Amino acid sequence: MTEKKISPQQVVEHMLQEDLFSKWLQIEVLAVREGYCKTQMKVRAEMINGLGITHGGIAFSLADSTFAFACNSRNNLSVALDTSINFLKPVQPADILIAEAIEIHNGRSTGLYQISITNQHEHKIAIFKGTCFRTERHVVKW
Amino acid sequence: MTEKKISPQQVVEHMLQEDLFSKWLQIEVLAVREGYCKTQMKVRAEMINGLGITHGGIAFSLADSTFAFACNSRNNLSVALDTSINFLKPVQPADILIAEAIEIHNGRSTGLYQISITNQHEHKIAIFKGTCFRTERHVVKW
Amino acid sequence: MTEKKISPQQVVEHMLQEDLFSKWLQIEVLAVREGYCKTQMKVRAEMINGLGITHGGIAFSLADSTFAFACNSRNNLSVALDTSINFLKPVQPADILIAEAIEIHNGRSTGLYQISITNQHEHKIAIFKGTCFRTERHVVKW
Amino acid sequence: MTEKKISPQQVVEHMLQEDLFSKWLQIEVLAVREGYCKTQMKVRAEMINGLGITHGGIAFSLADSTFAFACNSRNNLSVALDTSINFLKPVQPADILIAEAIEIHNGRSTGLYQISITNQHEHKIAIFKGTCFRTERHVVKW
Repeated sequence: MTEKKISPQQVVEHMLQEDLFSKWLQIEVLAVREGYCKTQMKVRAEMINGLGITHGGIAFSLADSTFAFACNSRNNLSVALDTSINFLKPVQPADILIAEAIEIHNGRSTGLYQISITNQHEHKIAIFKGTCFRTERHVVKW
Repeated sequence: MTEKKISPQQVVEHMLQEDLFSKWLQIEVLAVREGYCKTQMKVRAEMINGLGITHGGIAFSLADSTFAFACNSRNNLSVALDTSINFLKPVQPADILIAEAIEIHNGRSTGLYQISITNQHEHKIAIFKGTCFRTERHVVKW
Repeated sequence: MTEKKISPQQVVEHMLQEDLFSKWLQIEVLAVREGYCKTQMKVRAEMINGLGITHGGIAFSLADSTFAFACNSRNNLSVALDTSINFLKPVQPADILIAEAIEIHNGRSTGLYQISITNQHEHKIAIFKGTCFRTERHVVKW
Repeated sequence: MTEKKISPQQVVEHMLQEDLFSKWLQIEVLAVREGYCKTQMKVRAEMINGLGITHGGIAFSLADSTFAFACNSRNNLSVALDTSINFLKPVQPADILIAEAIEIHNGRSTGLYQISITNQHEHKIAIFKGTCFRTERHVVKW
């Protein structure tokens, strides 16, 4: 019950503050609630790979942050075990990426989340799936 | 046969030159041959996530670059379709990550690669698996 | 245009006729259209594993058949490249499993499908993801 | 220490006895030790799919059983969370499939295993990866 004092917003705010790599990516959190998170970022020229399109690690990292925010939203510290991403469409510099995490399964010890990434034209560009392990420690102490 | 003129080294050198995100990560290529690549990078403080450990996107990005170098090494332009990564151990700033890509399957239209990431203590920290699609275009024109 | 003569129903009917393992599983096709398929089966006592619950291969096989029906539905012979399945809840003998395949991406050379499996209580028991490669041959000749 | 009384062989023997689906598949255990298992089976005509080759569920099921034997071998009851399989080569009826499970990570709460499947010509036909969750219950009571 005392745990109720920490809202999903407070957890994600706390995480974002520490999350230097998400800051470098300039990820913005658009919405968060229990088991859910929506974020966005703008791709920059310095994010391309050796084939001239956006590096796969960029979409992965956006999805992984969004996954972390959603799966930690109940303040039960959860870490990624197994994640996968399917790349559906190339991403170009200046594209806006929007990631939405939904909770497929909220188990006591593990959870399963799916994150869809779309661009500014509402084209699906990647699908991410993540299994997390719940440590039973807290993200935010109170 | 004319294709033989472009070595794996030339392909990867060309890719690295364009690969601004791998440059930001400061990925170094230690070895490359047909279907194989070994790389390394040093984790920096700015690469942490909201839980104070290295962001999962960093290990993923290192693996993804190493995968791209290995699967494009025959100069047959190949793009990632489906990738997955399992996280085995937390990574700390200042850790050295070494990624090694091996070719499990070299098909005409697709390929399968496995990338192991170890740290400076030779602990396995992540396992990455990637399926690529071969476009039949070239990375380096000659 | 002549290809239009072969409907998704005809493709799946043809596949089912040959599919001896789906017959052993007693998979029934409930619905099929382009890029979509819904099936069901009843778990039998002989399908359990060494821990006394239904073998993971049973849910996988149901999902894999449903994936095959959905991704071949346009009569472009497609084979599985990379598939994954997350197990969310144990399945018991006599449970009814319902699998629904949706098309996430219908590319020229590859496709991506997601198959959800629920039981008779509408509990999600597994999530399957499949990438297929399109051979450009036909399933049904005409 | 009392737990030492139950050997990997005893655990797998116990599991196999209950495992009716592995019996239908006619899986034989060739070797087992802590974190390791090697099995084999012969593909039968009744195991084909709608495209006339062996159903993907057969290779998956063989791998999944081998995974279960390896990850339960220390008598710590472990269940599959997330598994994936890549199909590299079609399998024909009468082929002999040999599956070998190795332990990539043996964590307290979870484990990661890789299972390679080869045929009688020593061609790799599939690669399976499995994450399990350890329940801390026993497979075999003593």
